[in-house]
Amino acid sequence: MDSLLRQSQKLCPFLNKTSPSTLRALSTSATSAAAANVGGSMSNLQVIARRCPVMSKALAVQSIRGGGALRTAGLPRTASLGRTGGCRSYVVPTSPVQFSRSDKKDAEAADIESVHIRAGVFDTSKGVCPHGAAAMNAAKLAEQEVKLAASPKTARTKAAPFNYEEFYEAELDKKHKDKSYRYFNNINRLAKNFPRAHMEQEEELVDVFCSNDYLGMGRNPQVLKTMHETLDKYGAGAGGTRNISGHNRHAIKLEKTLAKLHSKEAALVFSSCYVANDATLATLGSKLPNCVILSDQLNHASMIQGIRHSGARKMVFKHNDLDDLEKKLASLPVEVPKIIAFESVYSMCGSVAPIEAICDLADKYGAITFLDEVHAVGMYGPHGAGVAEHIDYEAHKAGRPQGTVQDRIDIITGTLGKAYGVVGGYIAGSAKFVDMIRSLAPGFIFTTSLPPATMAGASTAIEYQYNYLGDRILQQVHTRQTKEKLAARDIPVIPNPSHIVPILVGNAELAKQASDELLNNHKIYVQAINYPTVPVGQERLRITPTPGHTAEYQDRLVNALEQVWTKLGIKRTSEWKALGGLCGVGVEGAEAIENVWTDEQLGLVKKVKEEKKEATLAPGNKAGRGLVMDAILEREQSRTVGATA
Amino acid sequence: MDSLLRQSQKLCPFLNKTSPSTLRALSTSATSAAAANVGGSMSNLQVIARRCPVMSKALAVQSIRGGGALRTAGLPRTASLGRTGGCRSYVVPTSPVQFSRSDKKDAEAADIESVHIRAGVFDTSKGVCPHGAAAMNAAKLAEQEVKLAASPKTARTKAAPFNYEEFYEAELDKKHKDKSYRYFNNINRLAKNFPRAHMEQEEELVDVFCSNDYLGMGRNPQVLKTMHETLDKYGAGAGGTRNISGHNRHAIKLEKTLAKLHSKEAALVFSSCYVANDATLATLGSKLPNCVILSDQLNHASMIQGIRHSGARKMVFKHNDLDDLEKKLASLPVEVPKIIAFESVYSMCGSVAPIEAICDLADKYGAITFLDEVHAVGMYGPHGAGVAEHIDYEAHKAGRPQGTVQDRIDIITGTLGKAYGVVGGYIAGSAKFVDMIRSLAPGFIFTTSLPPATMAGASTAIEYQYNYLGDRILQQVHTRQTKEKLAARDIPVIPNPSHIVPILVGNAELAKQASDELLNNHKIYVQAINYPTVPVGQERLRITPTPGHTAEYQDRLVNALEQVWTKLGIKRTSEWKALGGLCGVGVEGAEAIENVWTDEQLGLVKKVKEEKKEATLAPGNKAGRGLVMDAILEREQSRTVGATA
Repeated sequence: MDSLLRQSQKLCPFLNKTSPSTLRALSTSATSAAAANVGGSMSNLQVIARRCPVMSKALAVQSIRGGGALRTAGLPRTASLGRTGGCRSYVVPTSPVQFSRSDKKDAEAADIESVHIRAGVFDTSKGVCPHGAAAMNAAKLAEQEVKLAASPKTARTKAAPFNYEEFYEAELDKKHKDKSYRYFNNINRLAKNFPRAHMEQEEELVDVFCSNDYLGMGRNPQVLKTMHETLDKYGAGAGGTRNISGHNRHAIKLEKTLAKLHSKEAALVFSSCYVANDATLATLGSKLPNCVILSDQLNHASMIQGIRHSGARKMVFKHNDLDDLEKKLASLPVEVPKIIAFESVYSMCGSVAPIEAICDLADKYGAITFLDEVHAVGMYGPHGAGVAEHIDYEAHKAGRPQGTVQDRIDIITGTLGKAYGVVGGYIAGSAKFVDMIRSLAPGFIFTTSLPPATMAGASTAIEYQYNYLGDRILQQVHTRQTKEKLAARDIPVIPNPSHIVPILVGNAELAKQASDELLNNHKIYVQAINYPTVPVGQERLRITPTPGHTAEYQDRLVNALEQVWTKLGIKRTSEWKALGGLCGVGVEGAEAIENVWTDEQLGLVKKVKEEKKEATLAPGNKAGRGLVMDAILEREQSRTVGATA
Repeated sequence: MDSLLRQSQKLCPFLNKTSPSTLRALSTSATSAAAANVGGSMSNLQVIARRCPVMSKALAVQSIRGGGALRTAGLPRTASLGRTGGCRSYVVPTSPVQFSRSDKKDAEAADIESVHIRAGVFDTSKGVCPHGAAAMNAAKLAEQEVKLAASPKTARTKAAPFNYEEFYEAELDKKHKDKSYRYFNNINRLAKNFPRAHMEQEEELVDVFCSNDYLGMGRNPQVLKTMHETLDKYGAGAGGTRNISGHNRHAIKLEKTLAKLHSKEAALVFSSCYVANDATLATLGSKLPNCVILSDQLNHASMIQGIRHSGARKMVFKHNDLDDLEKKLASLPVEVPKIIAFESVYSMCGSVAPIEAICDLADKYGAITFLDEVHAVGMYGPHGAGVAEHIDYEAHKAGRPQGTVQDRIDIITGTLGKAYGVVGGYIAGSAKFVDMIRSLAPGFIFTTSLPPATMAGASTAIEYQYNYLGDRILQQVHTRQTKEKLAARDIPVIPNPSHIVPILVGNAELAKQASDELLNNHKIYVQAINYPTVPVGQERLRITPTPGHTAEYQDRLVNALEQVWTKLGIKRTSEWKALGGLCGVGVEGAEAIENVWTDEQLGLVKKVKEEKKEATLAPGNKAGRGLVMDAILEREQSRTVGATA
């Protein structure tokens, strides 16, 4: 591989002028967000090389000569693991802008470069890739050389057709080698035995501790009733796109319900929030003239893809870093359209965005805000509209949404498949904005509508949570209890103010082993989260307690983790501390976390707590505890919609 | 606008050297597939100009000066309407490769250019955009000028922030002006009164004649039973991605059923086939080194997007044109990976691809085949696997899939939301290919799984149609009857060998009026199909009979169309003939159409036909007819899975 690198340097005027340390950084896939072209495992250097008009051909020729070995062997990797702090949710296809983010100036240059690199050309007119006419001639010569080798006339007599199956296999081998190959667990969540599931065999029961059905709405009797009735009356599917026979009262009602939830003029439903984010950012970014999208470093794959698909210029700002965001905003002319794209709750580390301050910056620099509330809808706010609603808790509770932070957000996106328990995604915003996306986004226009029963079930779930606080309060209480119990055992929870309980493992194989141990020996299902969902070295177990995860479940989990941590020798919080800390775990002098839900707000659940305490007083009767909790839950969930806690 | 054009020509070395006729073609959005950046209404010139580093800034400055008017006014348009023959399903974002497709040499040059144009740079090293150092300097100067006008320091004092709401409104105005703004009809399809629906009010009943629930599987009792049971047992949603608690027995069974259906090693389920096509082509095209994707001119939006998102080189071949495809294949080195992407049934005109001949070409030139069977699964073949299966009807019926055309197809994609009546999409292919897409495609990895009930319902629908021919045969019989009745009235059906009944209107306003007339005065719902789903001038009504559209429904439809055609003065077949024909309507000396389903294959339905005849013999009893048909349908649909017709 070293010879390839040397060869590349000779061939390419870009590599030629690049320092060895930058090249080293580029050849790393694990710690760079520019790692893979599509969700994958190539080094940055390979990604860029493939896009280069000269190198791509050279690579192809070598690939054919070497039977595809070159592409699969990969360039040398260096995994940098250390006190980087923070964490990154998703490492997916993105413009190469991110590879030199550590140096601000480089990052900006890379921002400008990214468009060119994406097209495989180094544009001399910009002065970014500093090679002149001589370099250009060298490139042309090299290209001719490559042409000679690869031209149809000379090649067809020698070359064999491309071996597709071999290529697929090589791609899979890479995943196996870097331990990012995924094995799915067969988990069948039981509506009548929530939060439990059966494995392949119905008698193999496990506790599910990592589902995104955060509130158990997937088994809510009112939601199920609505769905059964709608299935019977309107059938299994919508039968068409929204434009051609797939528009109906269920879609109209759902979009009205969503607009009301977020106090916006309009809303639009998509197949999923992945599609909603992708389609909306792609459409906005490509339509708004010279649009620049400012994207939080930890944004979800769907947003990264949407920005990429828009072709708009992208500037990545450091996670939740207002200074960095402001610097980038200030570097742009005020009249240029700008979108600040970010999330309220970041799903893999549980961090929460400074939403109000971001709105202030948006106002100051003439940007609009695009807020993904996917992990927050149903979970925060007096009506379950998310963190933006939660910030002005009392105003929204009193029915005064005007002038609130939520009101200032231009575009909110959310899901119907997590806290609302069904499936689908949506956007909410001004009537004109929503109508424009409805009219222009191919990902909305050219796809079959969600089934009537799905949309009706989602409406019921939203209305239920709009009017009832009990589930999300109980969920928060269980989250706090779980975090406290884990802390008491020195098990490393990544600190955060939300409902996510990420436990740091820091190694892909160990994380998978821990997950397997929990499942096989303790009948607890917690999926290991590895690259590319989190960066290499920051692997974790991600735990999501629900209202159904009562003390009994929590204790089983904590005891099991204790045993697994000991058996596999996984680092404790104190050990991370000795190493200087990682992802906020064991960091000396860290600021105290202030939870989104305040103690006062959670005080509403006092009664439930008391009943739980009573249940716990009968210690021999384990089943009894569950039964009491279930009874409380059942009673609360069967309340008529319209009641408030 | 003329002044802008002159200005542009002076500024840009590309425009400077381009002939007036090419510029005219570029300024047309309606007849060019490169029309809009995202599903929209810009001219090619605007699309390209926005991507140009010089022009985009000039446009932005002018846009701000003119309050956004420039972007919304659009460049002059020329709508070419004539004997172009054929039709195009979708006009959506695509690389500018297509604008000069008429001239092969130009098309190839444009292919190479497209990558550059997409990035907004004209690469001198390629010699494609033939301007030298002088032109480059001119561009630099122009850029500096623009910078001066738009730089933060000078501009912030003068310029106002971008007006987003005004921009959204202007985009919507464009849609209103070119009559492509869409009004959705509120259609609530009734499971127990198929194929009827109610409008906003439950008592307003209409016949639905344009749903893609082609076989009425959305109301199939076995499908609904499975879904009810699964809902009760496993709840409303999957609760996570496939990797994190969203993988279950329903997903496993569905993918096994799909692999069996297409006699492939493996299958993978997505949120929709839009996502399946987009994610698969984007992943394949970006991963395969130097991949070239050959795409049928009429391919669906989802494929066009997938190809665009892959960043791979794209070559568009003329619709179903083997000569053109072969020329393009032959122009590429044999060792370069190539994907031929096409559909079996093209949904807006009903044409069918020469699948076997395309497989031959793929073998000859070392390409793989990507076949979208979205409108064919459930509808063709002894097991409902689609047109590829239908070609070797007897072999598949006898359980010998090896060596068949379907066996030769590398990748099949399909939907669960049309003939199978539910929602969702999939791919099927070799185990390694499917595992690679599973491992790398963000659109699969980072999204919530389909709900258990949806997957279970889909499995039941596929198995039902696998074992029972009655529905699709009855659907074909009703299609033939409807086409015959329309032909007898001189109403212009676009000829095709499939189950689609497209009726040519040829004008956007007339098509909308015809649809409104049918709905308001005849209680029949047929959506008008306008741009961008079909090209301007080829607007149509698209009718899709189902097994439930018995003679009574057909007669109501034909009589209503007769009245509407007369009232609105829409052209009849004979009138199109006098004009030389359009889209195959009224074309002198056209070859006879050979239906996919042969008379012999349809002879299987003889018994059903006889019973229908009996029912028709009681002419006074209109309700009676429907009841007899319903009885036949009910009886056939309630047969146990496992029975064969």
